[in-house]
Formats: sequence, structure tokens, C-alpha cells
Amino acid sequence: MPRYKLTIEYNGAPFCGWQSQQNGLAVQDVLEAGIKGLCGVDIRVNGAGRTDAGVHALGQVAHVDLPEPVATDTIRDAVNAHMRAKPVSIVEVEEVPADFEARFSAIRRHYLYRIVNRRAPLTLDRGQAWLVFKPLDADAMHAAAQLLVGLHDFTTFRSTQCQSKSPVKTLDAISVSRYGEEIEIATEARSFLHNQVRSIVGSLKLVGEGRWSPRMLERALEARDRTACGPVAPPDGLYLLKVDY
Amino acid sequence: MPRYKLTIEYNGAPFCGWQSQQNGLAVQDVLEAGIKGLCGVDIRVNGAGRTDAGVHALGQVAHVDLPEPVATDTIRDAVNAHMRAKPVSIVEVEEVPADFEARFSAIRRHYLYRIVNRRAPLTLDRGQAWLVFKPLDADAMHAAAQLLVGLHDFTTFRSTQCQSKSPVKTLDAISVSRYGEEIEIATEARSFLHNQVRSIVGSLKLVGEGRWSPRMLERALEARDRTACGPVAPPDGLYLLKVDY
Repeated sequence: MPRYKLTIEYNGAPFCGWQSQQNGLAVQDVLEAGIKGLCGVDIRVNGAGRTDAGVHALGQVAHVDLPEPVATDTIRDAVNAHMRAKPVSIVEVEEVPADFEARFSAIRRHYLYRIVNRRAPLTLDRGQAWLVFKPLDADAMHAAAQLLVGLHDFTTFRSTQCQSKSPVKTLDAISVSRYGEEIEIATEARSFLHNQVRSIVGSLKLVGEGRWSPRMLERALEARDRTACGPVAPPDGLYLLKVDY
Repeated sequence: MPRYKLTIEYNGAPFCGWQSQQNGLAVQDVLEAGIKGLCGVDIRVNGAGRTDAGVHALGQVAHVDLPEPVATDTIRDAVNAHMRAKPVSIVEVEEVPADFEARFSAIRRHYLYRIVNRRAPLTLDRGQAWLVFKPLDADAMHAAAQLLVGLHDFTTFRSTQCQSKSPVKTLDAISVSRYGEEIEIATEARSFLHNQVRSIVGSLKLVGEGRWSPRMLERALEARDRTACGPVAPPDGLYLLKVDY
């Protein structure tokens, strides 16, 4: 059975998240229905990252084993045609060796968080960014964020429902940049804890508003205590950008 | 009665266009309802450009006369609060002299047209760009577009329903640029004819696909005949970007 790597884009707003659940429609369900449309049988799609409800992707990756070889362009176009009613799209298909695992072969994940920093409500970006009213100091956010880079116990910045065995992770890079009224927070790590990026962004927002000093962010990290975290940022602004192999 | 200049952003997808009509909800209706929410009376909102159904704006401009002075930030926040359910947002309010007219005082209008040039269906950009499958040569489109710059009879590139007295207009500038899989067409003129940008983009797409030579575009312009135009581009990709005064 040939294995294919799918690169997938989606608007997370209408979904209960990446992963199939008892209640609600998942991105995985849409893909699996699309692949069934192509192959006629139920085939499991294995994703690299389990994005939450409302979280978007520009470069989610999944692998799938098809019963027989199909041209990669045909997979992309046929599955996309079956998914047309939903905002999920395969942008690229590549044949990969049988030992390629979307989740376990990944060496780095890139997430982007978009904040729109203004008074006026969102229109075209509704559901696709976090609207923050108070003026944010992006330079202060960037400087403070560097305190989180490296190997740390991120208990403060992970959901209490996180299923990862250890809260110790290496954050490879984080940068905060302002482009006009938009602030982009880019993060890179081999893997992330559940709600880690949204927890970090929620705390960095307090730094940007001047309510937290860099030292307070550092103390929150050192506390290794979920209750030390700032309010978690909403899913709307979060994008799984890219997965490296 | 003090006069205010409103700078307005909207997602045109759910609307029948800028201007109030017998059927359907217009952006103007939403703004007028929001202003009634603030002032308690019916007040007309006068826009700079009558965008069509499905066309978006990042910087539409309108003027409005209020019965008494109101702080500009209060106008913005209060009217936006009343419009919350709709993707229409006032981004800026400025008090202007009584002879300021959003439509007639404008000296230049800027429109942007967004094409996404790929096979995969749109997800996050659904309704906000034109998806074109065939690879487009943006450089060829840019070069050909320069033939349209200047004072011309644009009969070929205007809707048969255009109400402008004359088809003769000056196109100040047009540029076609590629950013990865996205192609942006930026245009500037004192004023545009009905469907002019979408008609030009539809014809430039034929140039980009190699189906029209630059000479064919020039001949279409010279024909002064609506039937010589390429298929009109959909409203999804069109944005009223800015109005200069």
C-alpha cells in the first residue's frame, strides 16, 4: 500500500478541531470522507498536529495509505472536489516511504499567531485573528518572549487536559513583529504542549499592555503552575504554518 | 450640523453592495442603522464608491451630518457596537468642513484585485480572492496592463448598466505583482466606470494564460465595444483600498 504525504490548509472556524470526536465535525472527518470519495473505502488520515476547535492551518501535514497507487495530482484534485463544501483543501501530495509518519517523523513545527491591535471590530479577518483593543508594545513582547526560549518545564503554559507525558519541552524560537495594526507571533519547536502557544500569547499580551513586566513572565514560567498563566488567547488567531521533516 | 468623514472596512460577501436597494441588505443600510442607534434619527450616509455585491473595502469613505457634535472616538465605538452582528466596521472618524463630499471631493480611488493562482480550492480566503487554476504569467499581465494607462474610451471595459455620462476616463496607474501563489492587481484613477476593474482583470487573466497577446488587449480597448471584453472577474477578489482627498 503506497503512502502519501498530504499538505493541508483549512479554516478551523466551523470544526471541533483536527481530530475526530464523538460530537461535532472534525477536519479529519472531512478528509477521510474525501478520501473515501476517491477510493470507496474507509481509510484513516494521520495528522502531524492536533489543532483545537477554531484553530487554522496553512500547512498541516498528514499521511495516508491508499489501497493502490494514484497519481499525486489526481489525489489532490479528486479529494478536494469531494471536500468542496467545506473550507479544507489539500495543497500538495507527495509519495513517501512506508516509514514516514506525519506525527512522529516531524522534526519541527511552526505556529503563527495573529493579533489585530485596534479599536475597530474585525470584518474580513473575523474568526481569523485576535482583536486586542489596548495598544500593545510589540518590542516589549518580543524581548520578554526570549525568556521562554530553550528547554523549560512549561507546566504554566499547558492546558490541564494536556496528554503529553512531560511538561518539559524545548522552544526553539519565538518572535513578535508588528506590521501596522497587525502583530504576528511566530513560534518553532519540535513539538508543543496542548494550548502552549495560546497560553504564551495570552501572557505576552499582558506584557504588551504593560500589565506584566518581563520579570513577571519569567516568574510565571518558574512557578510551573497553571494558575500563574495569563488568560489563554482565543483559537481564532492561531495557525499551524508548517511542519518540517 | 457637524459633518464627519468615516473610513470604513467591510466584507462584501453578505451584502447586495454598498448602496441601498429595494431587495437585499446593503452596507449603507448597516451603517445607517448603526448611526440611528447612536443618534436616534434617520441620517443618510454618503459613500465615495458604490461597490457591487460581494466587493470588499478596506478604506471606503463616507460622510455623514450629525444633529449635534459627538466625539469622533465615540462615533466610531458606538456605531461599531450597533453594527457588531455584521462584518462592517468604522476604522476612523474625522470631523470635516461642511463642503467635504465623500464622492465629489475625492481626487483618487485605489482598488486592489487579489487572484490566488493554484489548483487547490480556497479555505481561509474563500469569497476574498479569485481562484485561477491555470498558471498565470504576472509579468506579461503587468506589461500588457500598461497599454491601458492614460486617457481612453473604456467602453469595452464597462458594464452595459454603467450610469456614467462618458466612457472616457483616465487610468492613472495599474500594476500586476506576484507574491508566491498570489497575484495582486493594483489600480488608481480619479474615478472608475461600473465593473471597470473587474472587466480589466478578466481580460488580463487571458493575457496571463497566454490566450491573449498584448496586441489583442490593445485591440479590445480600441474596439470600444463591450463584447470585445474578456469574461468579467468575480467580485470576490475586489477591494476598495483607499480614497484620496
